[in-house]
Amino acid sequence: MKALAGLALAAALSMAAATALATADCVTCHRDKTPAAVAQWQASAHGKGGIGCADCHGKDHARIDQDLGRVEPKVCGECHAKALKTHESSRHGMGLHSGWGCTRALEGRSPVECRFCHEAGSTAPKGGLQCARFLKQSSSMAESGCNACHRVETSCASCHSNHNTSLAIVRDPNVCAKCHMGPDHPQWEMWQTSQHGTLHASVGAQTGPGCQRCHLGAGSHNVSTGITTTSGNEPLPDKEAKARRAAMLAVCAQCHAPAFAQRELARGDAIRAESLALVKEAEKIVWDLADHGLLDPMPAARPPHPQRGHELVTDSQMLYEDTSHIERLFFKMKKYDLAKTVKGAYHQNPAYTHWYGNAELKMDLVDIRAEASRLRARGAATAQTPEVRLRALKSQLERGALAPDEYQREKQKVLDGLAR
Amino acid sequence: MKALAGLALAAALSMAAATALATADCVTCHRDKTPAAVAQWQASAHGKGGIGCADCHGKDHARIDQDLGRVEPKVCGECHAKALKTHESSRHGMGLHSGWGCTRALEGRSPVECRFCHEAGSTAPKGGLQCARFLKQSSSMAESGCNACHRVETSCASCHSNHNTSLAIVRDPNVCAKCHMGPDHPQWEMWQTSQHGTLHASVGAQTGPGCQRCHLGAGSHNVSTGITTTSGNEPLPDKEAKARRAAMLAVCAQCHAPAFAQRELARGDAIRAESLALVKEAEKIVWDLADHGLLDPMPAARPPHPQRGHELVTDSQMLYEDTSHIERLFFKMKKYDLAKTVKGAYHQNPAYTHWYGNAELKMDLVDIRAEASRLRARGAATAQTPEVRLRALKSQLERGALAPDEYQREKQKVLDGLAR
Amino acid sequence: MKALAGLALAAALSMAAATALATADCVTCHRDKTPAAVAQWQASAHGKGGIGCADCHGKDHARIDQDLGRVEPKVCGECHAKALKTHESSRHGMGLHSGWGCTRALEGRSPVECRFCHEAGSTAPKGGLQCARFLKQSSSMAESGCNACHRVETSCASCHSNHNTSLAIVRDPNVCAKCHMGPDHPQWEMWQTSQHGTLHASVGAQTGPGCQRCHLGAGSHNVSTGITTTSGNEPLPDKEAKARRAAMLAVCAQCHAPAFAQRELARGDAIRAESLALVKEAEKIVWDLADHGLLDPMPAARPPHPQRGHELVTDSQMLYEDTSHIERLFFKMKKYDLAKTVKGAYHQNPAYTHWYGNAELKMDLVDIRAEASRLRARGAATAQTPEVRLRALKSQLERGALAPDEYQREKQKVLDGLAR
Repeated sequence: MKALAGLALAAALSMAAATALATADCVTCHRDKTPAAVAQWQASAHGKGGIGCADCHGKDHARIDQDLGRVEPKVCGECHAKALKTHESSRHGMGLHSGWGCTRALEGRSPVECRFCHEAGSTAPKGGLQCARFLKQSSSMAESGCNACHRVETSCASCHSNHNTSLAIVRDPNVCAKCHMGPDHPQWEMWQTSQHGTLHASVGAQTGPGCQRCHLGAGSHNVSTGITTTSGNEPLPDKEAKARRAAMLAVCAQCHAPAFAQRELARGDAIRAESLALVKEAEKIVWDLADHGLLDPMPAARPPHPQRGHELVTDSQMLYEDTSHIERLFFKMKKYDLAKTVKGAYHQNPAYTHWYGNAELKMDLVDIRAEASRLRARGAATAQTPEVRLRALKSQLERGALAPDEYQREKQKVLDGLAR
Repeated sequence: MKALAGLALAAALSMAAATALATADCVTCHRDKTPAAVAQWQASAHGKGGIGCADCHGKDHARIDQDLGRVEPKVCGECHAKALKTHESSRHGMGLHSGWGCTRALEGRSPVECRFCHEAGSTAPKGGLQCARFLKQSSSMAESGCNACHRVETSCASCHSNHNTSLAIVRDPNVCAKCHMGPDHPQWEMWQTSQHGTLHASVGAQTGPGCQRCHLGAGSHNVSTGITTTSGNEPLPDKEAKARRAAMLAVCAQCHAPAFAQRELARGDAIRAESLALVKEAEKIVWDLADHGLLDPMPAARPPHPQRGHELVTDSQMLYEDTSHIERLFFKMKKYDLAKTVKGAYHQNPAYTHWYGNAELKMDLVDIRAEASRLRARGAATAQTPEVRLRALKSQLERGALAPDEYQREKQKVLDGLAR
Repeated sequence: MKALAGLALAAALSMAAATALATADCVTCHRDKTPAAVAQWQASAHGKGGIGCADCHGKDHARIDQDLGRVEPKVCGECHAKALKTHESSRHGMGLHSGWGCTRALEGRSPVECRFCHEAGSTAPKGGLQCARFLKQSSSMAESGCNACHRVETSCASCHSNHNTSLAIVRDPNVCAKCHMGPDHPQWEMWQTSQHGTLHASVGAQTGPGCQRCHLGAGSHNVSTGITTTSGNEPLPDKEAKARRAAMLAVCAQCHAPAFAQRELARGDAIRAESLALVKEAEKIVWDLADHGLLDPMPAARPPHPQRGHELVTDSQMLYEDTSHIERLFFKMKKYDLAKTVKGAYHQNPAYTHWYGNAELKMDLVDIRAEASRLRARGAATAQTPEVRLRALKSQLERGALAPDEYQREKQKVLDGLAR
């Protein structure tokens, strides 16, 4: 592999020689036009090693002027073949584009954006799934909100920066912060204020491990070391989960006794299970209200969901907009507070685990029950008619919440009541 | 200008000579009384240059003992004339006092506070406007809450600190944090976790620009470089906005291609426009409820607004207290979540733009619609009487939401209904 | 005292000699098994001074394998006698266990946890009080949430870390962050973004004091210097409060004029009083609803409170779960927003004092009044029956909200109404 990298470097250097004149030309102008970019490049390994502007951006200045000179991973991979390969097979490299849908019908789309999902000149998508929340956004929000992080698949500069490619950047936990933060997954915040993060701040990375030490091996681009769940907090298949747990325990063992580390992670598992149960309890309340026609507004009265029309959606394609108050409470519970509790526990941050997490989950449930009580009180006049009751039973049957025999039994009771 | 500064320095040094004895006297006692303050001063350019205690605080110790020895900007300006002038014409120096009203009737006022708005011995206000939220506060909250930031106009130490006047303080983005943070404008938090902020943390200010590099020129006290909107997220007049955008693009161009920077900022503009539209949609719901007498409580039943009495206020003078639940939801939407979305986009922070911003705006709208639905359900019995309908039309006419001819037409329909 | 410490060190060193072989044995294996822990120890004062593994963890490897080799404070105290003594008499050392109840009936308890409250082999509790919120948690949440901070009493490593015992760790404000953060007491966040914290970041601890400089004396383990209130924001007895205020002012005086510091802290006191009054106003609303049977659900219809069964609890034992919506709003107000306001003021952080604090308190009150209005509207049909009115009067009498003569008078009015 080293030999291969050597060859790639040699090839790159000969390319660099071929474009030496071009690079000198670039620098002549850009020393004035983009002085900090030039200074960063000159001080970088690229600059010192003779990898010039055109080696990455190409020589067609007209394309660059249209902002089409963006450097794609395969360009980086010409020299950094192993890094590209491990990136492409990592969570960062695979499947993130799967969160997107085709947005060419949205206003203001730029052709540049097409390349996140398609090879130039092709309409075949690189991936298959779609994200309902992404599809609801304007072009600008999709780019400045969603894609600003999700383009990690298609841009090495997401982590490595553009012209200052110092390894100090990617070895610093801050590099992870700009995406792994916020209400939906505040991994950076919870690490920063954990024992690990505070020791990192006071006495450095040897005593206080950062993101990279636990989740990336030395120099690896696999970013998921030790993570035993999906991004939705569901467990991975048993075999994979076991291998990942073993990998994490090997990292813990650098500092901690195995019994201690196992117990800490087992607590995380237990907290995940009990927290998911709270979410399921809330989900059941929302579905029951829908069965009885008590959501306000009901899905039929809303703008259609981009993938499912007028269905009620509470799975990973759930929206936070054009929904009812109780569903938006459920969105907060499932997407924000569950993540804070579970990830807080695995990151050994008590304030996230308990206060930002567990306490919020339980207060969400209080609020969801209260709103359900209000909606039931308001719908009391109509909710218990036989028609409503039969419709609710049918809904429960259709989504598998009632077995066919249970359904028949319950239905018969209602009909018997009518006959009396 | 340099010659002028030289003269000022000479004048200062001769002043320093005149008070040399006084300063020595101060230090003799204060070395014991306020040792850290003396040490900071001694190590500062002031201390080394012979600018002593009395040069800034005066010689009247009785005044100082009453906490009247606070150093006003004009004292600093005796030496730092250019800095004072640019400060006074900057956003920090102008108009911030305009947020205040006269609070002499509040309990516990200290005469010191009067000087934020008045010259000593004068009752003429330095500025004209008033801030309703400020006027509702106790004296203590007004000082420790509002004025702790807003006194920047009247105190150079707000940024420069008191005795350690090192330029390292004002060149560090942290100096901005203590005011430009929090739910209403978390510029610091969103910068800190942006690509710019995280690079600042890992490899320094040359690659990761801080607040000062983009918003203050070298050594300038104009703090608004590149900002094209008012503090309420409304666009500035076209000509000024264009000049400011050009100034910002010139900063971006140090590192980025113009096409890239223009596109990023244009996305910010688009996000601002679409976010403002969401706020307007919510505002319309609140006004419609007020028209129909459905706010709970209605403005007539609340303590009066400090400036407008029993009017409904949803503009920049809106209160967060003594209001109804739906208006407090609207306050959060307009004052907090709009700012997070818009400023998040301009600061290239995806988590603020999308999750803390856009998602909250849309969930606010869900909550506001839900509360409106509850209020309408509760008021259903009375809301549709002809009296209520006529009153609503009159309100809409008066605030310009209906044109006179539309009003006549709608009114006639109601009257026709009554005649039938 | 120094002589005593010298003796302790000599004793420790002779112990170290006796276990020298054992430590060498440990290191032989652990250099491979827990390499970072060994490296941290070797570079530490312990490692350099010959204090080996078995000196702290004991020689019984079977116990260690069961995770029973945890180092208790009394082991540390064999050498650090003075530190242990001041720790034990500090807020960190006393009474924190008082927040716990016996949890042996909870699922999944480990015997290790028993030692937080009991000496080995004893069932006598070290302390008496119980915490209802703790008692509601699963074993895993109690450990990863509650005890991860509250075990500070029983573990010097909470602050000092395990093997890297560098004083740089405990002199850095970050060490406090991992517990003193979050929605219930964000002292770290508010310090970090205060003038003090931002100066600490830009020019260091001499100009920008950290937690330790104000709240711990030089080397002291008393962590409460200058704090004049209980953890519930109630004032301490007058004499103690005065002594603590004097101690704080002595710290302030290192940099600030006494008149300035006194005024700042007096503003904190005033803000505490006015904020507590807002909380009392909200509490009254909650109790009034309970008196009239209007909480949804009423305490009688909920799972029992771990200490009080079906009582309404709004004091420091209040739960955030299995409660009603209005009580959970009150929990947020009292536990989170009051703390942000008051602690924000004492820490000179305007954004916490005003926006995260005061504005939230007042919006909480708006929300609580709105929910009360909804509950009253829903209960209007039954709320004003003489039975309900009499029950409300009885409740008010029983909890001291009505004097006996007032009660008799009000009761008579209701009875007179019935007779008419």
